[in-house]
Amino acid sequence: MRIALIGFGGVGKAFIELLHDKHEILKSMGLTLILKSVMNSKGGIYNPMGIDPLRLIEHVHQGGELCEFPDEGIRKETFQNLIMRRDVDLLIETTPTNNKTGEPGLTHISKALERGFHVVTANKGPVLLAYKQLCTLAAKSHVQLGIGCTTGGALPTINAGRFDLAGAQILSIEGILNGTSNYILSEMEERDCSYEEALKQAQQMGIAETDPSLDVEGWDTATKLLILTNILMEEEHKLREIRVEGITRLSPQHIQEAKKEGKRLKLIGKAEKGNNRTALTVGIEALSQDHPLFNVNSTNKAVRYITDTLGDLTVIGGASGTKSAAASILRDIINIYKGYPFV
Amino acid sequence: MRIALIGFGGVGKAFIELLHDKHEILKSMGLTLILKSVMNSKGGIYNPMGIDPLRLIEHVHQGGELCEFPDEGIRKETFQNLIMRRDVDLLIETTPTNNKTGEPGLTHISKALERGFHVVTANKGPVLLAYKQLCTLAAKSHVQLGIGCTTGGALPTINAGRFDLAGAQILSIEGILNGTSNYILSEMEERDCSYEEALKQAQQMGIAETDPSLDVEGWDTATKLLILTNILMEEEHKLREIRVEGITRLSPQHIQEAKKEGKRLKLIGKAEKGNNRTALTVGIEALSQDHPLFNVNSTNKAVRYITDTLGDLTVIGGASGTKSAAASILRDIINIYKGYPFV
Repeated sequence: MRIALIGFGGVGKAFIELLHDKHEILKSMGLTLILKSVMNSKGGIYNPMGIDPLRLIEHVHQGGELCEFPDEGIRKETFQNLIMRRDVDLLIETTPTNNKTGEPGLTHISKALERGFHVVTANKGPVLLAYKQLCTLAAKSHVQLGIGCTTGGALPTINAGRFDLAGAQILSIEGILNGTSNYILSEMEERDCSYEEALKQAQQMGIAETDPSLDVEGWDTATKLLILTNILMEEEHKLREIRVEGITRLSPQHIQEAKKEGKRLKLIGKAEKGNNRTALTVGIEALSQDHPLFNVNSTNKAVRYITDTLGDLTVIGGASGTKSAAASILRDIINIYKGYPFV
Repeated sequence: MRIALIGFGGVGKAFIELLHDKHEILKSMGLTLILKSVMNSKGGIYNPMGIDPLRLIEHVHQGGELCEFPDEGIRKETFQNLIMRRDVDLLIETTPTNNKTGEPGLTHISKALERGFHVVTANKGPVLLAYKQLCTLAAKSHVQLGIGCTTGGALPTINAGRFDLAGAQILSIEGILNGTSNYILSEMEERDCSYEEALKQAQQMGIAETDPSLDVEGWDTATKLLILTNILMEEEHKLREIRVEGITRLSPQHIQEAKKEGKRLKLIGKAEKGNNRTALTVGIEALSQDHPLFNVNSTNKAVRYITDTLGDLTVIGGASGTKSAAASILRDIINIYKGYPFV
């Protein structure tokens, strides 16, 4: 399978490393992934014979720019050329997300699907804004669109909801969907420290961004909840409908009081089917010890589905990180190769 | 899709009810399931126009024998006729399991696959003894074999391991795989009662069989663990290799002592990759509060996978029962209809 990667940040780089590490295992499945192009915001490279993942990673680790990768056979690449040339089977889209316009990811994904490439993306914006339209494009071109990485990375939220609950009606979705805020809450509880101290620690460890607002104010959770609800419950909600509360105003006292009662405070995204409508909320909840999400600590994430005929299903895991996000992209690629019907 | 059911016990009957209840939802997916034949050990019925699920269930609820179902157009059916006639697309196999010979399920499944029917089975024996051979038969006939119900019913153990961890190496499998023994352990802890009392309670509630030995002595757990290990870790172990311990010798003291230390005793099936070989065991373990399986109580089941690149994945749910087992059969049928590659 010939692949191209657009977006060469942490996840993109981790994916290239994984491509090298998993070469033998993929080969044993009969799957050889030939990396034809890699692009970032400054430009791109193309090798008709395939780019060597290991040499590219070494180049980057030595501080080299992507566009200056000096390997034999390397040419300059643009997205336009990639689309026109049509010599790849699958595009991996990992450019930064934009929840307002979806760009530039939305254009990349649409054009690639139109031209008959499969797409696997880690980019929430386009999925949030245009998932149905993108599925229509994919179906028209008889290709697949893998979005497993957009709602929990390694945690298989979409797959669990779609395939493992096939035939059941999902009555509610409840999840700890943001690893950064969950890590901060766990630290505040364990070390009995303030929000600010825990955030600083998370930033030092590379778990929180310099501007952590999307994570700690609940918007990342809301985005993932919205994607899950609209796809799995087949509804059409908008981000603005969701009542969103973050963790920034929590004091150590709040946490320790809950702890005294044997409870834990968690940032929960929840969609509950009511008589007339489904209510979506993101906020702090005090979970008791017997709640399936009580033990989901540190950067772990989890989602719980309640259904009519298949009971409760809770999926826990997916520690945050670029390596596991990259592995979740590879998972979608393998499943597309195996003929898994995503759209 | 034209279907036939062989095995008309609790799960088979629950499946027929589900077929009626889910008729509209299936139709909205474009899937109409026409029930052509139903067979049990005493004989079978066939209607070329389709058997009405609701009327069949009413007949059975009124104490009627399957073979005496008096509906218009009903004829006698044998398995031989079903195979020769070739007018169904999918066979559901739910006859009682036999871990020594796999029969009669093994013959039913093999013949059906050979003749080009998809098969969905709840029968552990044939999967335990001949999964690889059955997959070869299915591949030859270009049909699918769904076995989701054999290792945890509604709990998606096989799917989670196969699709959600694609590309990752599974380093260990650890599960609470038997609802009956987990229920007994939970009762012994909560009510501080003896094993015998908890078992009696489970029997009265229909959760334990009159002869509960397969469940409480750990063999059901061992069978499921073996199926998971051999399929997901691509190994070839035998039941006799597993060190199996059950819950029958546990006293209330054992449980209360663990409780005092904040721990819970659970019957755990475990497969761990070592340097040279994978060790399989079934036995009692004292789990601490932060263990992902600590909160899996009553008839709930769970499995935890530890992997190289996708981290830990724990799947909890799947309360035991004929209704959820039937729903897990329907799940496999829907996913086969959607083109999900099982084999």
